[in-house]
Amino acid sequence: MKTPDPRTLLRAMFDAAIAAAQPALCVPRHLPQPPNGRLVVVGAGKASAAMARAVEAHWPGALSGLVVTRYGYAVPCERIEIVEAAHPVPDAAGEAAARRMLALVQGLTPDDLVLCLISGGGSSLLTLPPPGLGLADKQALNRALLASGASIGEMNCVRRHLSLIKGGRLAAACKPARVLNLLLSDVPGDDPIDIASGPTVPDPSTCADALDILRRYGIELPTQARAWLESGEGESLKAGDPRLPEIDTRFIATPQMALEAAAAVARDAGLKPCILGDAIEGEARDVAKTLAGIALQVARRGQPVPPPCVLLSGGETTVTLRGKGRGGRNVEFLLSLGIALDGEPGIHALAGDTDGVDGQEEIAGALLAPDTLARAWAQGLQPRARLDDNDGHGFFEALGDSVVTGPTLTNVNDFRAIVITADPGGADGATQRN
Amino acid sequence: MKTPDPRTLLRAMFDAAIAAAQPALCVPRHLPQPPNGRLVVVGAGKASAAMARAVEAHWPGALSGLVVTRYGYAVPCERIEIVEAAHPVPDAAGEAAARRMLALVQGLTPDDLVLCLISGGGSSLLTLPPPGLGLADKQALNRALLASGASIGEMNCVRRHLSLIKGGRLAAACKPARVLNLLLSDVPGDDPIDIASGPTVPDPSTCADALDILRRYGIELPTQARAWLESGEGESLKAGDPRLPEIDTRFIATPQMALEAAAAVARDAGLKPCILGDAIEGEARDVAKTLAGIALQVARRGQPVPPPCVLLSGGETTVTLRGKGRGGRNVEFLLSLGIALDGEPGIHALAGDTDGVDGQEEIAGALLAPDTLARAWAQGLQPRARLDDNDGHGFFEALGDSVVTGPTLTNVNDFRAIVITADPGGADGATQRN
Repeated sequence: MKTPDPRTLLRAMFDAAIAAAQPALCVPRHLPQPPNGRLVVVGAGKASAAMARAVEAHWPGALSGLVVTRYGYAVPCERIEIVEAAHPVPDAAGEAAARRMLALVQGLTPDDLVLCLISGGGSSLLTLPPPGLGLADKQALNRALLASGASIGEMNCVRRHLSLIKGGRLAAACKPARVLNLLLSDVPGDDPIDIASGPTVPDPSTCADALDILRRYGIELPTQARAWLESGEGESLKAGDPRLPEIDTRFIATPQMALEAAAAVARDAGLKPCILGDAIEGEARDVAKTLAGIALQVARRGQPVPPPCVLLSGGETTVTLRGKGRGGRNVEFLLSLGIALDGEPGIHALAGDTDGVDGQEEIAGALLAPDTLARAWAQGLQPRARLDDNDGHGFFEALGDSVVTGPTLTNVNDFRAIVITADPGGADGATQRN
Repeated sequence: MKTPDPRTLLRAMFDAAIAAAQPALCVPRHLPQPPNGRLVVVGAGKASAAMARAVEAHWPGALSGLVVTRYGYAVPCERIEIVEAAHPVPDAAGEAAARRMLALVQGLTPDDLVLCLISGGGSSLLTLPPPGLGLADKQALNRALLASGASIGEMNCVRRHLSLIKGGRLAAACKPARVLNLLLSDVPGDDPIDIASGPTVPDPSTCADALDILRRYGIELPTQARAWLESGEGESLKAGDPRLPEIDTRFIATPQMALEAAAAVARDAGLKPCILGDAIEGEARDVAKTLAGIALQVARRGQPVPPPCVLLSGGETTVTLRGKGRGGRNVEFLLSLGIALDGEPGIHALAGDTDGVDGQEEIAGALLAPDTLARAWAQGLQPRARLDDNDGHGFFEALGDSVVTGPTLTNVNDFRAIVITADPGGADGATQRN
């Protein structure tokens, strides 16, 4: 079979990954049977308004509801109210939405169903601190956690126990109605408790865990908030807690599902897909060097998979800003990958953000080809200087290699694909003769 | 089959990787048939004295020779003279050795054979600048190249064309005698021209390439040295050049061969080996995060290979020093890996330098287990603070998890192995019920 044009194939894989995470496409197939009673829709997150619209478009009966999304992420809905609030730093709009949502699910019956549309960003959009912890306190706590070296999991554990809506409390408020969670995940590991801090799922961690973490990193709390944790008042809801209703939780889209969709496109084109990970983290330029090393191993030695193949990965890299260019973590990754591959024949790549916005611009990412560096030098663009200036968008735009999707209304994090069509050849021969 | 103890298996794989690169074990099988004439041994590199000793121990007939190694890397030889010189900054001892080596191979006959023992570090140990380029000039050029952003390949190209012994010139001096190169590689890609700057192999690059690189990065040369390049006097020897003798080049040990030896140990123990790359580069802590993402993909989803398996990789990471601890790039990698894996069950790892010295200490590396972080916290060792202080040796030594081999007399770069024995389980289930 003839291998298709790598650039066309890469774009088709990226489009398939985004399509797999489109609420309009992935919500309908997870909609439940209509309940005997009412359907109430709640939700929080950057993709949750788009999820609400998909529910409205496909739900056969009556419904009502309230969903909170980020400023600028609202989409028109007719029966579900969409409100906007601040992310990543919470504001009063998010707190008001949280209070209204708790009120909305009061007084339901066992015949009713609460459909919860949860996506990334929901944690700061749905915020309701306990008595004695004001907005300023919460911001101070966030700063202390970020500076402490605590892991994301540790930070989330503390946050869940300092909330009146997270850690299963919203689900408890729904009882006796049943809860169906539709989750769109952008977090490594896809743990439901980590998506929007799990307002509608049971929490395995405890107040004691939260206190341990605060002690471990030497973080102080206001007296009332500490008493909230120490008294056990802050305890989140555990699996099996009789205060929880019947809960059904479904992932409708995850980074892994997006990668699997891209893998299917590759397979159809005759390339073997190799999914390296759906949760790859680290400094973008060094993740790129590592994946370049793996791509070269494929090209030169046919390990860990023989070409033609594609190395797929997701997750969220980071960029330590050093320069003043126009960048984003995906184009930073791709420029560093290009420098590391140094024009190696037969290797093409695409890196992009599935929300369509890499960094601050409406550019999702870019494409890399074996001739990218040579074309850059021919234009007087110095690849390493552009990388040092964090100018990935400037670099790839000048080459006409930007990838633009427009806003995708979803987010399953970064998408990276490296297509290797080279033949491993005899580079490993033990003997060479002049 | 029962999976063996991961710690024992990891150490066995590391030992096998080092053994595969031991001159005493890998030189003898590559020794040639005795020539009708004389055997003259020359060589340069950190492992070349140990290679010379292996030749002496197994050569049935008469021989003589001269090999240059790094200060402190000499081993006792009886018939091959071993001299020591400076690395990585060249000194007069290396220049004297280069002159003597060129003289030693003069006047040979077609019946004679020159056996060249080349290993990493040979480029600075065997230095002979052209007229008009003094030691101070050469040091200034090296500084300018390092600061320019030029790649290693570009730097080596310039260096090869500013030498009277590199780029095939030593081989040309041997003619009419035949040349047999035994190469012990520590460079990514195992290109013979990049090991010790290829004194005895043909060079595909030209003076024009070197001048392009100098122009591209705006690097100035002393007038005489520039004339040397522009006149073509500095031209290295190309394949097929009639001034070159018959040359046979064999890799006796490479990072890949070391990884394959470890893979064989894994296979015998019932684990599937997955070699990710023999030339992985990048900041150690971020390479670790990337490989942690792949290891978690294996553990949770059985991709790209199902457990039980081992992810193997080689190459050379870098460490940007921020702290004052006792570190090395392998223990820095391992500590960052441990933090990223966060105690994930069923994942063990070893990272070590195959020369037995990671950083400044006679400690090769360390072992990581799922309980490493918990044991550290129990001792009051804060993993993230130790990483920020670049204190990998301090961290793992306190836990009793250092790996000590003693000096190995060889170097095929870093060795990293991650054993995953966990079952992928149902972490990817689309539905969870409370």
